[in-house]
Amino acid sequence: MSYKDEQLHEEKVFKDPVHRYVHVRDRVIWDLIATPEFQRLRRIKQLGTTNITFHGAEHSRFNHSLGVYEIVRRIISNFQDRPHWNNDQRLLCLCAALLHDLGHGPFSHSFEKVFKLDHEYFTQQIILGDTYVNKILERVHPGFAQDVADVIAKTYSDKLVVSLISSQIDADRMDYLQRDAYFTGVSYGHFDMERILRVMRPIEDQVVIKSSGMHAVEDYIMSRYQMYWQVYFHPVTRSAEVILTKILHRAKYLYESEYAFKLEPLHFLSFFTGDVSLEEYLKLDESIVHYYFQLWQEEEDEILRDLCERFMNRRLFKYVEFNPNKQMNDWMKLYQLFKDAGIDPDYYLVVDSSSDLPYDFYRPGEEEERLPIHLLMPNGTLKELSRHSDIVESISGKKRTDHKLYFPKDLLQAIEDKKIVQEITDILYSKEL
Amino acid sequence: MSYKDEQLHEEKVFKDPVHRYVHVRDRVIWDLIATPEFQRLRRIKQLGTTNITFHGAEHSRFNHSLGVYEIVRRIISNFQDRPHWNNDQRLLCLCAALLHDLGHGPFSHSFEKVFKLDHEYFTQQIILGDTYVNKILERVHPGFAQDVADVIAKTYSDKLVVSLISSQIDADRMDYLQRDAYFTGVSYGHFDMERILRVMRPIEDQVVIKSSGMHAVEDYIMSRYQMYWQVYFHPVTRSAEVILTKILHRAKYLYESEYAFKLEPLHFLSFFTGDVSLEEYLKLDESIVHYYFQLWQEEEDEILRDLCERFMNRRLFKYVEFNPNKQMNDWMKLYQLFKDAGIDPDYYLVVDSSSDLPYDFYRPGEEEERLPIHLLMPNGTLKELSRHSDIVESISGKKRTDHKLYFPKDLLQAIEDKKIVQEITDILYSKEL
Amino acid sequence: MSYKDEQLHEEKVFKDPVHRYVHVRDRVIWDLIATPEFQRLRRIKQLGTTNITFHGAEHSRFNHSLGVYEIVRRIISNFQDRPHWNNDQRLLCLCAALLHDLGHGPFSHSFEKVFKLDHEYFTQQIILGDTYVNKILERVHPGFAQDVADVIAKTYSDKLVVSLISSQIDADRMDYLQRDAYFTGVSYGHFDMERILRVMRPIEDQVVIKSSGMHAVEDYIMSRYQMYWQVYFHPVTRSAEVILTKILHRAKYLYESEYAFKLEPLHFLSFFTGDVSLEEYLKLDESIVHYYFQLWQEEEDEILRDLCERFMNRRLFKYVEFNPNKQMNDWMKLYQLFKDAGIDPDYYLVVDSSSDLPYDFYRPGEEEERLPIHLLMPNGTLKELSRHSDIVESISGKKRTDHKLYFPKDLLQAIEDKKIVQEITDILYSKEL
Amino acid sequence: MSYKDEQLHEEKVFKDPVHRYVHVRDRVIWDLIATPEFQRLRRIKQLGTTNITFHGAEHSRFNHSLGVYEIVRRIISNFQDRPHWNNDQRLLCLCAALLHDLGHGPFSHSFEKVFKLDHEYFTQQIILGDTYVNKILERVHPGFAQDVADVIAKTYSDKLVVSLISSQIDADRMDYLQRDAYFTGVSYGHFDMERILRVMRPIEDQVVIKSSGMHAVEDYIMSRYQMYWQVYFHPVTRSAEVILTKILHRAKYLYESEYAFKLEPLHFLSFFTGDVSLEEYLKLDESIVHYYFQLWQEEEDEILRDLCERFMNRRLFKYVEFNPNKQMNDWMKLYQLFKDAGIDPDYYLVVDSSSDLPYDFYRPGEEEERLPIHLLMPNGTLKELSRHSDIVESISGKKRTDHKLYFPKDLLQAIEDKKIVQEITDILYSKEL
Repeated sequence: MSYKDEQLHEEKVFKDPVHRYVHVRDRVIWDLIATPEFQRLRRIKQLGTTNITFHGAEHSRFNHSLGVYEIVRRIISNFQDRPHWNNDQRLLCLCAALLHDLGHGPFSHSFEKVFKLDHEYFTQQIILGDTYVNKILERVHPGFAQDVADVIAKTYSDKLVVSLISSQIDADRMDYLQRDAYFTGVSYGHFDMERILRVMRPIEDQVVIKSSGMHAVEDYIMSRYQMYWQVYFHPVTRSAEVILTKILHRAKYLYESEYAFKLEPLHFLSFFTGDVSLEEYLKLDESIVHYYFQLWQEEEDEILRDLCERFMNRRLFKYVEFNPNKQMNDWMKLYQLFKDAGIDPDYYLVVDSSSDLPYDFYRPGEEEERLPIHLLMPNGTLKELSRHSDIVESISGKKRTDHKLYFPKDLLQAIEDKKIVQEITDILYSKEL
Repeated sequence: MSYKDEQLHEEKVFKDPVHRYVHVRDRVIWDLIATPEFQRLRRIKQLGTTNITFHGAEHSRFNHSLGVYEIVRRIISNFQDRPHWNNDQRLLCLCAALLHDLGHGPFSHSFEKVFKLDHEYFTQQIILGDTYVNKILERVHPGFAQDVADVIAKTYSDKLVVSLISSQIDADRMDYLQRDAYFTGVSYGHFDMERILRVMRPIEDQVVIKSSGMHAVEDYIMSRYQMYWQVYFHPVTRSAEVILTKILHRAKYLYESEYAFKLEPLHFLSFFTGDVSLEEYLKLDESIVHYYFQLWQEEEDEILRDLCERFMNRRLFKYVEFNPNKQMNDWMKLYQLFKDAGIDPDYYLVVDSSSDLPYDFYRPGEEEERLPIHLLMPNGTLKELSRHSDIVESISGKKRTDHKLYFPKDLLQAIEDKKIVQEITDILYSKEL
Repeated sequence: MSYKDEQLHEEKVFKDPVHRYVHVRDRVIWDLIATPEFQRLRRIKQLGTTNITFHGAEHSRFNHSLGVYEIVRRIISNFQDRPHWNNDQRLLCLCAALLHDLGHGPFSHSFEKVFKLDHEYFTQQIILGDTYVNKILERVHPGFAQDVADVIAKTYSDKLVVSLISSQIDADRMDYLQRDAYFTGVSYGHFDMERILRVMRPIEDQVVIKSSGMHAVEDYIMSRYQMYWQVYFHPVTRSAEVILTKILHRAKYLYESEYAFKLEPLHFLSFFTGDVSLEEYLKLDESIVHYYFQLWQEEEDEILRDLCERFMNRRLFKYVEFNPNKQMNDWMKLYQLFKDAGIDPDYYLVVDSSSDLPYDFYRPGEEEERLPIHLLMPNGTLKELSRHSDIVESISGKKRTDHKLYFPKDLLQAIEDKKIVQEITDILYSKEL
Repeated sequence: MSYKDEQLHEEKVFKDPVHRYVHVRDRVIWDLIATPEFQRLRRIKQLGTTNITFHGAEHSRFNHSLGVYEIVRRIISNFQDRPHWNNDQRLLCLCAALLHDLGHGPFSHSFEKVFKLDHEYFTQQIILGDTYVNKILERVHPGFAQDVADVIAKTYSDKLVVSLISSQIDADRMDYLQRDAYFTGVSYGHFDMERILRVMRPIEDQVVIKSSGMHAVEDYIMSRYQMYWQVYFHPVTRSAEVILTKILHRAKYLYESEYAFKLEPLHFLSFFTGDVSLEEYLKLDESIVHYYFQLWQEEEDEILRDLCERFMNRRLFKYVEFNPNKQMNDWMKLYQLFKDAGIDPDYYLVVDSSSDLPYDFYRPGEEEERLPIHLLMPNGTLKELSRHSDIVESISGKKRTDHKLYFPKDLLQAIEDKKIVQEITDILYSKEL
């Protein structure tokens, strides 16, 4: 039997709190999970700094990746005898599902922003480069690694396969909503996935939903909306992320200023210079980041030291509502007042904005094109979801943004010039409702 | 108002997946949670290497400590108007509950074994030493820190208070069983805690259980039994722990042999010499351990390198059942065969034993004295649980031990002398059922 | 101690799958639960014919009434030390919560429609009439029964008390959404009630919600919306209800036509004549209805016999979408065709319409005035929910109606004149999408 | 295609709170569910009088029958490619699972005891008699109904098939434990069924369990033990059952004494004379029983009236512990004292005993032979569970009996001769612990 078709002697399972069990039969999948590149995902939290707010959210990307694989496995098992479904694509789908997040690093969002990185680029690198993962994929057949990479990059020719992994209602999203809800403990994030799986139908170029399942999809969209605002954009989580981002900025700045670190930050050097090799990227997991942040709590540089101490010990910035469009004047005044008080506003006065688009239909040419959800009507035609659902219509395409201004309240209180404190406080709190 | 009685302006809550919400009203508790010593528990996993087997088990000791606090809070709130209950002990109980695990380090079990440490000693040090925690406790009233330390050490004079924190059915155990079950996703570990809380009654020197709640307690004891054998002693978890222990042994040995590490293992030095200061102890969280293990994957020493690589990439040892009492002969033969094959048996041939005592009544003078569970009968007398419950009787006082022999199957397969391989295999697998 | 303040020697609990436990401390509550009038609710299903569609939905109104009581108990316990809350109203609230559905009969909806009854009228009668319930309430103090009746009728002077029992987000609705979701097994109907209870605040004339809890309320509104369309208005459930209604119509018609029933329908006589005494009303529980329906399966009258046989054996009507406003013509044609085929269209061709108003703000003078949900903003002002929540705004005040045409497909197939069958089928199925 | 192999155009599902969905593909199963004989199970509660104690336990036998079917469906789907499994038996297993409780009447336990009936006899009658069910089964192939009846009667030749339906760990028990736990809301009754299904293996003559799943089976056995003592044998439930039994006895006695009922109890006549036809049996569902009990609340006979009033309004008997073996003397004294006080002890002084045998291995010749649970060891041999599990060993074969003496406390208090009251009270309460 070829490697492609090789089955484990006996099915293996992983106990999973969200899907009960993750089932593995294929030797290829089993081997991929065992690679160092995949095991590394155990040391990267799924939700970055969210555990600062929701202490249960310690789950790793390893966790989530297995979950996405399991959902795709179940979808395919339902598709088995359906028209339009080509079972030759099975292993490709499973591999793409398992590996879709492989390039994530620690605290992806902040690292990508500060160091201009892109986890999707590294996912491609790991799949196509000189890695254990690549060797296994190429054993399936030469070119298979490229196929997997293409599916993840959404450039693969068979769009039905792509839509299983990336669409408005793909396995990725269905897993993370449920998983993040489970581990944070919030009551949002639940929807009837089993129902959705049962009403999914493959057609030529996408997965569609039987219209009888519309309400389950509405519920899923609402879950997403709630999870975004209740969990993902939680202002306390963002406070930790603001500090994290500023630490990275400061360290980079110090490096560029030829500051002498007590211990040379070896793991960070290529990030500072902007020339990160795959090997270096893979080494930088969350443990390493924490190691440096701990060291840096004893650095000479006061800002780096303070920020690291804040991050590690959860002494976060406070926040007020702030509209950067309308309050530019306030902003400039605050900036100057902070300077006057000896608090560097570039690190200690931070506007953070979060936006989401709970459901969006296809608008060609947009940055992040997302396949819309199509309902399969009883008469066989397709109908875009928001044209059929009042609720979805009411929120689709509407971008909502939340702006907050972060600052260290404790430092303010320590300012000696009480007049400055008063002025700052007046601006910060007068606008608040 | 005194600091002792100070209440937060508005109750604060932590969202908790197990108890839904953890409620905090007392300023003292709020301040304790904010200390660096307590925040450090976020970087120490509750279950050490268990996440290697159950990928959901990434939860931290921070998590569990809040949970124990919350359970004690609920118990006390039920006790409010009961005879025997002195509400002056309230804050003491809450602090002891919150802080009882404060001295835990990363992978406590292995570190304690290899470096002869004791987390309980460090808990005392943190509470009584020059720490943020100590300052807060002493603000309550001078001597309060000592009281908290005594409750945790079980030496406090009021035994009722001690029994809330440490007994056969204390808040500690009730929390970890449920929490570990939740995060691993196993179906064991559930029992009707709300019922148990409702039937708990304070008497002079202990907490007892109204006899009408006996079945809920039986269920709790069974949960414990199942969690021990299904989760805590899982052979795959133990394999990771065996490797971890051997890494520590090897690193210590190398240090003592004046081996030149590529990077001096600064964080470990005092552990190697056996003279760990509180400050050094607090710095060593799981991130730091992972940092070194990653570095050591590139060390010259082949054993250290190989073991670290195994631990980080989950290339574990395999195991067979092994009875060290009856199979001493086999053991000696294997030891020699490993040596002959060039595999150091001190690191690669490891017997690991786990035992539990699911329920034990009081036997004075024993190493780990545990207060038995007493039922409060309708006529007001007390009856020790195992005398009333058939099920508990059947398992009480019975120590069950499970021995396994761990070894690297992959290395065996690589031995050139196939005769040796055959001999080893014959011994290893002949005895197995 | 007065009866009003009398506490049970020990708290009693009911095990409840939704709220875990229902707690009773007050002697008055305990005594009310024990009355025959309240016990009768055990024999009346909460969801009428819904168990025909969702087989788990067998739960009784007894069930739900205890749940509403428990929620109000928890709300009040949170209100204990709040301004605006007058704890003298406590027992009044608990009694009103417990008894609010006391006047419900079997299959209320159909019975009320056919026999022009009103369960709220009977609730008043039971509370104020010569009943066990009345005796207990009057023992609290003379006039107390009237107070309870007024709270339930929403005419009580203290509007804060009224809003606990009847508003857009009252204990009644919070209980039934969760309970009906639990027993049907659907995944909708869940929301974070504990959170909502924590953000409820009493003000002078109503209960409001701290604005920080807005998302939990949004989730509750969405649950309601989903439960209405997925469970309460399920077309199969309505089919059973259509048949039930027609049975009652037919029986009444036969009685009025002086038809000779094999066994005189004693329990129904006063319903037929429209002069139902309280005593007669209380006797007619679901068992009695089922008893007669079983008997009537053997009646001479073919329509009564057939409809009863359908109801008892779940041989339901089929349905198609039908818009009575646009399809009047079709309707008239079908009516005639049924007649021609010998199938009485008054019983076998039924349009059923369901509408809901998921959230409505106050519109004085409307039939069913519902207090809107007010958010308590950080600055102390009130804001009506739909002005603050996009999602709620999008669905508020929008009445959605679903019309279906029900008919017995099996009877059609048995029509001899195949031309008629064809014509009927053409009309029924041509319009369907 | 033959009827046997006919599949529904599209899979149908029932929403089920316990198994999420019950899936139906086979036309035969769909048709069986639609029969009046099966629909009748909707009007018979799974747990008889248990809802008197646990108000959530209103679920019907219809509910449970679908659940057992679903579990067998899942087991068979796992067995598909296993050796020893003959897929020709599939439909037979599914039908037997679905229909195994078909002969249950209302409050089976009491009716069977008083009227010397046997629900298994009626299950056979319904399957083999002139019924809708029989017609459908015989359409599969002549003799199929007999096969189904034989499987249920455990006389079918293929013992593997029988053991799926009836053994110590069959689908019947796995369903009812989980279902009854769900609807009562107790925390017992949960075990990892998915795990058990995965470790079930068919061998020649039975279903066995892979030894690696032993702990899941232990957990199941413990659930059973807890459910028996916490739910099924709850003393309050038994009080209602005692009264019910006495009502039936009294009604039979009155009939035999030629007492003139106000309304002739037509539905009961054949039960009184002991000659119940299938047709009469099927008519007597719980509604009918409730109908008569309501009527009998207005009978002349004081005992019948009082008992019915007690049953309908939940005015139950109280109880004390009572050992009929050791307290015969007490019993005789009480019997006489009751007589002296004018309270008929044959109806108002009742000893009720419950026993269970949580796990039993095979003992040929015993009344209720139950196949033991066999573990399949790694070496391929079988081992009886209790020889491998300490916990199971400790409770296996041990019959535990609980005796209680039931009596109407309220009537005692009404006795005029206070001396008698004192004597009775002395006996009743002196013995109690």
